[in-house]
Amino acid sequence: MEERYLIGVDLGGTNIRVGIFCEDNRILNTEARKTDPFNRSYEEIIADISDMIFSIIKKNGVSKSYIQSVGIGAPGLIDSKEGVVLFSGNLNWVDVPVARKLEEKIMMPVKLANDADCAVYAESIAGAGKGFGNVCMLTLGTGIGGGVVADGELLKSGPGGMELGHMVIAVDGEECTCGARGCFEAYASATALIRDAKLAMINDKSSLMWQLCDGIIEKMNGEIPFLAALKKDKTAKMLIKNYVVYLGTGIVNIINIFRPDIILLGGGISNQGSYLIEPLTKYVRKRVFAGEMSYIARIKKASMGNDAGLLGAALL
Amino acid sequence: MEERYLIGVDLGGTNIRVGIFCEDNRILNTEARKTDPFNRSYEEIIADISDMIFSIIKKNGVSKSYIQSVGIGAPGLIDSKEGVVLFSGNLNWVDVPVARKLEEKIMMPVKLANDADCAVYAESIAGAGKGFGNVCMLTLGTGIGGGVVADGELLKSGPGGMELGHMVIAVDGEECTCGARGCFEAYASATALIRDAKLAMINDKSSLMWQLCDGIIEKMNGEIPFLAALKKDKTAKMLIKNYVVYLGTGIVNIINIFRPDIILLGGGISNQGSYLIEPLTKYVRKRVFAGEMSYIARIKKASMGNDAGLLGAALL
Repeated sequence: MEERYLIGVDLGGTNIRVGIFCEDNRILNTEARKTDPFNRSYEEIIADISDMIFSIIKKNGVSKSYIQSVGIGAPGLIDSKEGVVLFSGNLNWVDVPVARKLEEKIMMPVKLANDADCAVYAESIAGAGKGFGNVCMLTLGTGIGGGVVADGELLKSGPGGMELGHMVIAVDGEECTCGARGCFEAYASATALIRDAKLAMINDKSSLMWQLCDGIIEKMNGEIPFLAALKKDKTAKMLIKNYVVYLGTGIVNIINIFRPDIILLGGGISNQGSYLIEPLTKYVRKRVFAGEMSYIARIKKASMGNDAGLLGAALL
Repeated sequence: MEERYLIGVDLGGTNIRVGIFCEDNRILNTEARKTDPFNRSYEEIIADISDMIFSIIKKNGVSKSYIQSVGIGAPGLIDSKEGVVLFSGNLNWVDVPVARKLEEKIMMPVKLANDADCAVYAESIAGAGKGFGNVCMLTLGTGIGGGVVADGELLKSGPGGMELGHMVIAVDGEECTCGARGCFEAYASATALIRDAKLAMINDKSSLMWQLCDGIIEKMNGEIPFLAALKKDKTAKMLIKNYVVYLGTGIVNIINIFRPDIILLGGGISNQGSYLIEPLTKYVRKRVFAGEMSYIARIKKASMGNDAGLLGAALL
């Protein structure tokens, strides 16, 4: 029996990572280079990816004919059927047919998907969503990325990704980076929490959060509000209470729309673990359609970290 | 070549309708009876459905062996894999295994789905969504029902239907009949428009809407605000402007999540046609993620009316 290998590429705005996996989804090796998309053409970046793939194949002493699949996860608006990055601010790309261009170099078929889709796919197969057919993942970072696996398959619709972070939860609410108003990520991303924490600090000079920031408001991060709330700071507690409502509202929507078995949280804020997940679960169970009569997804921390994107791309 | 026939059942809170279709989706005949679920057991209702199926087969002179499929569309929380109505307020049913019970009577396999899912499925095959792979339909009535067809398949996730009407668009907003707050249908259903129109009338005794209601506020319906706005009544124009924002927000969310090719509107309010659809399209194009760079679904009136539910059930 011959062994077979999978290659995943995580093409981010900062780094390109390439990973090689066994058929049992175990990671064997990774390589990383800077993407530097604002100083380099897409041809240079794709040439780098090609080099990295050949290098990792060689490093592992694998024959190219044993490579079962090559997949790329990339941020932004993706047409995965055609293998084209339609638009990515992070990559500074518009209409780049990355799959075809890479195929021409490596002479193997290449698949492409949104990086958030890759992450949920991998988590559903080998991470915290393993054993569940219907999985949703939300990554709480600068924005909110998200994806859905339904009946074991990555849910893809028409061209353009699933922008769960840009579901409006507050009609005509906070301005969002996307140009619209009231988006989920304008309320429940780490960025939004930090913005709201700063405002709360300005309104309460006695808040413990000042101390935790060493008096410098710019030191605020996604952890300090939780830390201060844990130490019973009233302002921080109210802040977290509101954050749970915002995050919970987006999750209620996802449950009412997709009815997943499990919802996974990734990104820095998910490190709060049960301190976030317990009140969140309570809020969601109260607000979801048909309440306890319906099947309500469990909420859990994602488990694979950065490797989820790599494996998910490899498995496309 | 022998002909084959399909049977669809539209099981509503008020009426049971049964329809027989040719393989080319042409409707041959329908039968209807009252459901009367608050005075009758589910066994009686299922016995009625069985009678109606045998009667319609006989009426069309079709042999039972030529019946290719039997499907039921029902309102509420449905487990379509198991063929169970988990909960339906309209049917007054909890955990009724309607597919199995009907199978025992008619000795043919029976499929079950949510009625809104049936409607979008039929519209995507034989109605206004024909020729599009990715179709979303919203029915604007007492509430908002909705469903999605992705890549030609009815999108089903875990147990429980897709409750697009209960996606929250205004965190902690208007109370919804479901017990939560801020749901799409609490803002953009016909019921919500009528509620807001009455409030607007109370605040503007000179509004033309009073005249169109014969001075009786209870005569308000989903058409009067549009009629008054068309006649340049300021209050009605503002009302419709807000309604477009609410309906548009839900549609933006659906586009950002599913990226359908087309969005179909059903229910009484959709009869406003371009008078609703034009400003709606304008609003949506402005607010959707990645704006004109992304693929933005067209918005169109659904075309099949009540027969969509019947045909969709038949095609399950």
